[in-house]
Amino acid sequence: MEINAAATAWLLASTALVLLMTPGLAFFYGGMVRTKSVLNMIMMSFISIPLVSLAWVAVGYSLAFGSDHAGLIGGLEHAGLRGIGPESVTSGVPTLLYSTFQLTFAIVTAALVSGAIADRAKFSAWMAFVPLWIVAVYAPVAHWVWNADGWILKLGALDYAGGLVVEVVSGASGLAMALVLGPRFGFKKEAMRPHNMPMVLMGVGLLWFGWFGFNAGSALNANGTAAAVFLNTLLAGCTGMLGWLFVEQRRDGRPTTFGAASGIVAGLVAITPSCGSVDPLGAIVVGIAAGAVCSYAVAWKFRFSYDDSLDVVGVHFVGGVIGTVLIGLLATGTMTGGAEGLLYGGGFGQLGRQLVAIAAVAVFAFAVTFALAKAIDRTLGFRVPLEDEVNGVDLALHAETGYDHGVLAGVHTAPGQAEPADRLATS
Amino acid sequence: MEINAAATAWLLASTALVLLMTPGLAFFYGGMVRTKSVLNMIMMSFISIPLVSLAWVAVGYSLAFGSDHAGLIGGLEHAGLRGIGPESVTSGVPTLLYSTFQLTFAIVTAALVSGAIADRAKFSAWMAFVPLWIVAVYAPVAHWVWNADGWILKLGALDYAGGLVVEVVSGASGLAMALVLGPRFGFKKEAMRPHNMPMVLMGVGLLWFGWFGFNAGSALNANGTAAAVFLNTLLAGCTGMLGWLFVEQRRDGRPTTFGAASGIVAGLVAITPSCGSVDPLGAIVVGIAAGAVCSYAVAWKFRFSYDDSLDVVGVHFVGGVIGTVLIGLLATGTMTGGAEGLLYGGGFGQLGRQLVAIAAVAVFAFAVTFALAKAIDRTLGFRVPLEDEVNGVDLALHAETGYDHGVLAGVHTAPGQAEPADRLATS
Amino acid sequence: MEINAAATAWLLASTALVLLMTPGLAFFYGGMVRTKSVLNMIMMSFISIPLVSLAWVAVGYSLAFGSDHAGLIGGLEHAGLRGIGPESVTSGVPTLLYSTFQLTFAIVTAALVSGAIADRAKFSAWMAFVPLWIVAVYAPVAHWVWNADGWILKLGALDYAGGLVVEVVSGASGLAMALVLGPRFGFKKEAMRPHNMPMVLMGVGLLWFGWFGFNAGSALNANGTAAAVFLNTLLAGCTGMLGWLFVEQRRDGRPTTFGAASGIVAGLVAITPSCGSVDPLGAIVVGIAAGAVCSYAVAWKFRFSYDDSLDVVGVHFVGGVIGTVLIGLLATGTMTGGAEGLLYGGGFGQLGRQLVAIAAVAVFAFAVTFALAKAIDRTLGFRVPLEDEVNGVDLALHAETGYDHGVLAGVHTAPGQAEPADRLATS
Repeated sequence: MEINAAATAWLLASTALVLLMTPGLAFFYGGMVRTKSVLNMIMMSFISIPLVSLAWVAVGYSLAFGSDHAGLIGGLEHAGLRGIGPESVTSGVPTLLYSTFQLTFAIVTAALVSGAIADRAKFSAWMAFVPLWIVAVYAPVAHWVWNADGWILKLGALDYAGGLVVEVVSGASGLAMALVLGPRFGFKKEAMRPHNMPMVLMGVGLLWFGWFGFNAGSALNANGTAAAVFLNTLLAGCTGMLGWLFVEQRRDGRPTTFGAASGIVAGLVAITPSCGSVDPLGAIVVGIAAGAVCSYAVAWKFRFSYDDSLDVVGVHFVGGVIGTVLIGLLATGTMTGGAEGLLYGGGFGQLGRQLVAIAAVAVFAFAVTFALAKAIDRTLGFRVPLEDEVNGVDLALHAETGYDHGVLAGVHTAPGQAEPADRLATS
Repeated sequence: MEINAAATAWLLASTALVLLMTPGLAFFYGGMVRTKSVLNMIMMSFISIPLVSLAWVAVGYSLAFGSDHAGLIGGLEHAGLRGIGPESVTSGVPTLLYSTFQLTFAIVTAALVSGAIADRAKFSAWMAFVPLWIVAVYAPVAHWVWNADGWILKLGALDYAGGLVVEVVSGASGLAMALVLGPRFGFKKEAMRPHNMPMVLMGVGLLWFGWFGFNAGSALNANGTAAAVFLNTLLAGCTGMLGWLFVEQRRDGRPTTFGAASGIVAGLVAITPSCGSVDPLGAIVVGIAAGAVCSYAVAWKFRFSYDDSLDVVGVHFVGGVIGTVLIGLLATGTMTGGAEGLLYGGGFGQLGRQLVAIAAVAVFAFAVTFALAKAIDRTLGFRVPLEDEVNGVDLALHAETGYDHGVLAGVHTAPGQAEPADRLATS
Repeated sequence: MEINAAATAWLLASTALVLLMTPGLAFFYGGMVRTKSVLNMIMMSFISIPLVSLAWVAVGYSLAFGSDHAGLIGGLEHAGLRGIGPESVTSGVPTLLYSTFQLTFAIVTAALVSGAIADRAKFSAWMAFVPLWIVAVYAPVAHWVWNADGWILKLGALDYAGGLVVEVVSGASGLAMALVLGPRFGFKKEAMRPHNMPMVLMGVGLLWFGWFGFNAGSALNANGTAAAVFLNTLLAGCTGMLGWLFVEQRRDGRPTTFGAASGIVAGLVAITPSCGSVDPLGAIVVGIAAGAVCSYAVAWKFRFSYDDSLDVVGVHFVGGVIGTVLIGLLATGTMTGGAEGLLYGGGFGQLGRQLVAIAAVAVFAFAVTFALAKAIDRTLGFRVPLEDEVNGVDLALHAETGYDHGVLAGVHTAPGQAEPADRLATS
């Protein structure tokens, strides 16, 4: 098969864009936590890059996209990228690029999970968790949904860019993690305000930018479909933001920047599965629905007392479910080239397939993640000692503080601040 | 017509780049204001994304690029993007992509206007203003300049990427807004220093990055013209920076980072209309002229007492005029394929056409914006109460503060700080 | 020759990506210094953009890529980009784009050098240094390595994207600069901690993102080679990070975010020359080696008392040497289309050629930079007065402070803070 050079040009750019989402997420999350744990929060995202990359190259890619076994998992014939060289081609693009593009999705999905365990996880335990989780949870689901012979794809459920594989998986896994680790000290009792809202908004800006590679890159082509997906991605982010702010205004009397940031992400999450199935009007509806519903869903953690600290469940799980379900209502043949949703004359079939897929993926991701996290907790321990949590994991785990402004604003650094390791002390 | 896939690949990337300019602008502006209004400043840019997007999809695109009526405005046949599907093609790229690319220009133009009304505008009034302004001001001017039958295009005035449509429009509109809202409390009396210069420079870095999509994407092709435009965009940003710093060094004895940031933007503004008409030497001249002149123009607001807080007039209006006028002097047939400026043997004709276009666009944008802002001020009110302005619009409008460093540097958060809405308090 | 439009699309995007690396570097460096010199640190990177651009357009490009003279330097026939128009083509892409892509490499290389002289250099001296250094150091080495008739290319030494031209050159030059300027006041005596680690990590995120354009853009095509280079760039950044953190954990008992950031850069530096010669396994080895070795190399400055403040020598010189040498061991014919390293059956020949090239480039860059810096120091003076250094170069050189948080955290700005120039005071 010939390489499509223009498709490759766009996919190269898209892959870089998706990789930028992980630093973007690091800042989105990092700004939300308190000053004392900003570095650890950022670090959990950054360390996902190498951990997932090595796991992916070693076996993850082959398990997800290798030859099918019963619709459930791929073979190991491409372990270590064996048999794939610069000249290999998949779907009109270099196989190495296709594999790398898919890798960037796996990275950001793992990083998303860390939002559920802010401020209290052992860094060593997180490092053990990530590669195991990629192999045990992410790769199988990617196989089900995106491998030509995966059972969910064969079932006919649609997920264009990862509503199931990225959003439902990270959300369900985040819930399991929050339950295994338990709530932060002070949860529901003290204010835990974002320490740096501009950083949160910077993160959202980079996420949105990268999301165009995520969704429109998934077209694997530089054509009208990519263009339609691109516009859908813009519109759903827009109406996610408006939907969330509308609820805030009605409920709290104020539209916050935190709500704006969360609403954008909710809209983008929900359009991820559906961007290749709906038209612009559909994208507008998907975004509004996600923004409005998620703005309520983030409060469930207080009612049900699971400390999903940065709302992986409330935004990614709920938003992913909304977007995946709405395909069953709003899919149009113009985009899918076939499948149509209930409101476009397609009957209940597509809706049913979407629901089955969601249920299977959610249960699988929750159960396996729960077991894995429990196993790590029993062996390595997943949570830092209370004293370290109270003083801040940045000092305890990394011997650093996020900021050291010295004489800024006329206040000298307090005595007793950390003396970091040698190099830091003098560089 | 066939799609040009390589052009589409570059335009997909360019559209993402231009969208990133609005977050970039948010940080450029956000760093310039005082701590107490950083979030509102960022929010005025961010909220422009959904407001403009919906207005554009609803009617803006059709008014700008629909079938012509007397050179003045487009028809409504594409309202709601009616009749445009994934397979539609315009100028060799998918029409949906062309429309989305144009949309990102409209977004950042609206966001630019907010710089004139920092620290004092009601957020609800801004939300009402933006979509009306897109329909009443931006879409008509875009039609005049870029629609095949627009009167300015037919006149023969040149504006490659938005010196008229983006820069003169935002600058003239900013002046109207500053006059309607009146100066900030303390204007010309107290120091209003940027609270975070690194944030300003981050914003400029992202703006410059995105500007390559803005200008070189406007080639709608991946060819030598795009390359020449790209280099011009780099060079004019460079000499804009040097021009501004040169004046600062001579006048104040110090080259500041704020001057560097402003000079880069001034150069980029001025090359926006001219990037497709001048050669590299021309770009160097355009940048120097803009940097040097704008470094003086930003002081006019003190002399004439209009509080154009973040220099939309001094940088965007003045820079846009300089770049548009210089086409009349420096245009070279090598780039334009026809029109030549005075210094390249083209006579006074091109210069005259540029001046007519500037005058028409400036008067129109100023007058309509003034009327619109006055109407909103009389009905909703455009300005917050003095008490809210003094305490900071972040608290008053969004119930948030930009930063909450808690025990950073040994100083505990002061009592009496805002208690934000429920979710913030505990997430 | 025909333009390859798809290659051009990817190279346009890549050129924008590489340009973003300089702001990225500005924040990487800016976060590492103390609050009192953050702006000057950022400014040394930003000012490199115009200074290098003008020097490149004037003579640098022609000296590097013009017609060869004895393998040592190019002719001046393209000075001022003479003879190059929008229709000129080089290697299948517009010559103007090729030239601009190369220019962005020169910019970031110059900016890298500033890391060796943080907190103490006269800004005017830096402005004089940069364009002279581009002409005297960068352009000749670029000619040796990348011009079709350059002596190092003819020798057969390999440097895909700048291990010699960018990394060894900046590292050797940084050492010369550190020696000419001498150590900072308080070097080896007082703690000089990074003032803003999130800013450092933001910088690294942008650098990594841009590095995909740097390396994979150097393929000058959108094909399987670009894909392989892209993946190598990802993997080596990953294992550079892991290698550094592994050493830190063993040596200091803590993996720091600063180590993570430094390790990523070390891995990226080392893969820069080798990304087009090694397979994914090779990239993994290159990254680990660079991360681990550089984590020790950054301490040499304390042992040998040269104040390479932000580790240009320890990361860029050492990392560049590692990557360039490892080509001699790990090059595979699959990637190079010919040359093979020692471990792939190629014998000692390639290794020897790599070592000769490193030695020649290092000695040349060190010697010429040393002479140039000395000449500037004797005439203009390269170092600020001690008083300015202690109080901070931001105030002394730019009449600004990085942050002015006013009432943030309940602490009012201290009396006696700088009164900046007019515009700042009121804008």
